[in-house]
Amino acid sequence: MMQTYGISVIRTVPELRDQTAAWRDEDERIALVPTMGALHEGHIALVRRALETCDRVIVSLFINPTQFGKNEDLSIYPHDEIGDIEILEELGIHVLYAPTMEEMYPDGFATSVRVSELTEGLCGVFRPVHFAGVATVVTKLLLQSLPDVAVFGEKDYQQLQIIRRLARDLDIPVLIDGVPTVREEDGLALSSRNAYLSPRERVMAPSLFKVLQKVATGLQAGEEVQGLMEAGKRELLKDGFSKVDYFEVCDAETLKPVSRIKAAARVLAAAYLGKTRLIDNHPVVANRGD
Amino acid sequence: MMQTYGISVIRTVPELRDQTAAWRDEDERIALVPTMGALHEGHIALVRRALETCDRVIVSLFINPTQFGKNEDLSIYPHDEIGDIEILEELGIHVLYAPTMEEMYPDGFATSVRVSELTEGLCGVFRPVHFAGVATVVTKLLLQSLPDVAVFGEKDYQQLQIIRRLARDLDIPVLIDGVPTVREEDGLALSSRNAYLSPRERVMAPSLFKVLQKVATGLQAGEEVQGLMEAGKRELLKDGFSKVDYFEVCDAETLKPVSRIKAAARVLAAAYLGKTRLIDNHPVVANRGD
Repeated sequence: MMQTYGISVIRTVPELRDQTAAWRDEDERIALVPTMGALHEGHIALVRRALETCDRVIVSLFINPTQFGKNEDLSIYPHDEIGDIEILEELGIHVLYAPTMEEMYPDGFATSVRVSELTEGLCGVFRPVHFAGVATVVTKLLLQSLPDVAVFGEKDYQQLQIIRRLARDLDIPVLIDGVPTVREEDGLALSSRNAYLSPRERVMAPSLFKVLQKVATGLQAGEEVQGLMEAGKRELLKDGFSKVDYFEVCDAETLKPVSRIKAAARVLAAAYLGKTRLIDNHPVVANRGD
Repeated sequence: MMQTYGISVIRTVPELRDQTAAWRDEDERIALVPTMGALHEGHIALVRRALETCDRVIVSLFINPTQFGKNEDLSIYPHDEIGDIEILEELGIHVLYAPTMEEMYPDGFATSVRVSELTEGLCGVFRPVHFAGVATVVTKLLLQSLPDVAVFGEKDYQQLQIIRRLARDLDIPVLIDGVPTVREEDGLALSSRNAYLSPRERVMAPSLFKVLQKVATGLQAGEEVQGLMEAGKRELLKDGFSKVDYFEVCDAETLKPVSRIKAAARVLAAAYLGKTRLIDNHPVVANRGD
């Protein structure tokens, strides 16, 4: 274990388990915040939530190659471990767990965790290997640290629902805590991928949230799902998005498309500004009068 | 929790966790012995091993439907919970964990654990859904009880290697302990499925072990792999087996077929006596002089 400033940087599972065992002996509640680094205010909100609910917080940093498709941005994904350590140190985080590739995927590695249905729509259509990679690495991180709570953002809403499902289905003894998306003042959801946007694209980007919000408001006012979805998609293209992967209204838990709002729902979209794919989502509260 | 004789019968995960938490507070080592019931001397050997290495032993009883193929024997699989409880009580077992179907696979269940390569040869060819079902249910049982040790028989050797692999790959904090196969005096490996054999088939059944043993002895004496495999298969058919699913020599860890014995290997076979499919295997020690 390397002591850097006041935070411990841990690279191996046995060292991580020694640390968590010592905390557990003191009856301390442990939180895990999994990240791929390049920390921004969105991650910091997750860390703050973890610090509020638990005594000890582990932030993990692992850029997981198995959740990137062949033509995706693995090689250019932002990477700044020293900067991340400084941020976490200042927040009073106890451990940065940054395992090596060999620690996560040793020779002969052959196991994967799959979640059906939830992974099949939305981003699953456009990123076919993504969620198997996510489900497997998150299962590993949860079982390596066995935290009381693991904190994830609602920004990756489909991912959050998949993780809730797999934790429940595999009986992982952890509470999955979802934290609302942190946004820039103009509404753009914070994302490490925002760094790819040109200044011109950055100006157009907040349209994604504005359109989602407008559609959610319309749905809550009782307007028709199909029409609003189509209007939302058209508006994104008019506002400068080059391609819309999807713009859908889904049940908030199962993520099955809905044609009427009968229970809590979610509007979710993925769209390109140039080469950068942005995703975002917005809750839709079911009208109690229905 | 139902007190039956001196053993507790537990049906739900929360009750199981209350029990294991109490044991862990006392620093007691916990073993899990997963079974599908219909306990025989083979299971009893697993339970005895668990009692030797741990302070507390949980035996699970769950006939897992997801590991049976459509045309397999799920509906007639032997079932005798009262008899099993009596056996375990006499052995001094602390808990029988016999969850309900709803507890294991609640509505909306959607997650599976897959192990590639190891699951693809041998029985994986003939029972295509079997090992995904096994891997998923064993992961669940391990995470429900989080034992220090889980005990499995070498009789299901491919299953044992798959479980070792998934426990390592998913970082499940458990030691997987493999126990040598228990046999009748005539060599037949104990199995709940032996109950399906007619008296005439029962007389022929020990040939499976004898042929495996003979092939292993030949391999250790330096005889050629391919020739021995073919001879073994022919001998089973001559001895009354109606069909041989496979008769193979594989690396003892990866289960990849080998054409020469360079490291620890295993001879594995599956063959039918009438409608009953029997499996067995035998170790092959690598000749140190090679």
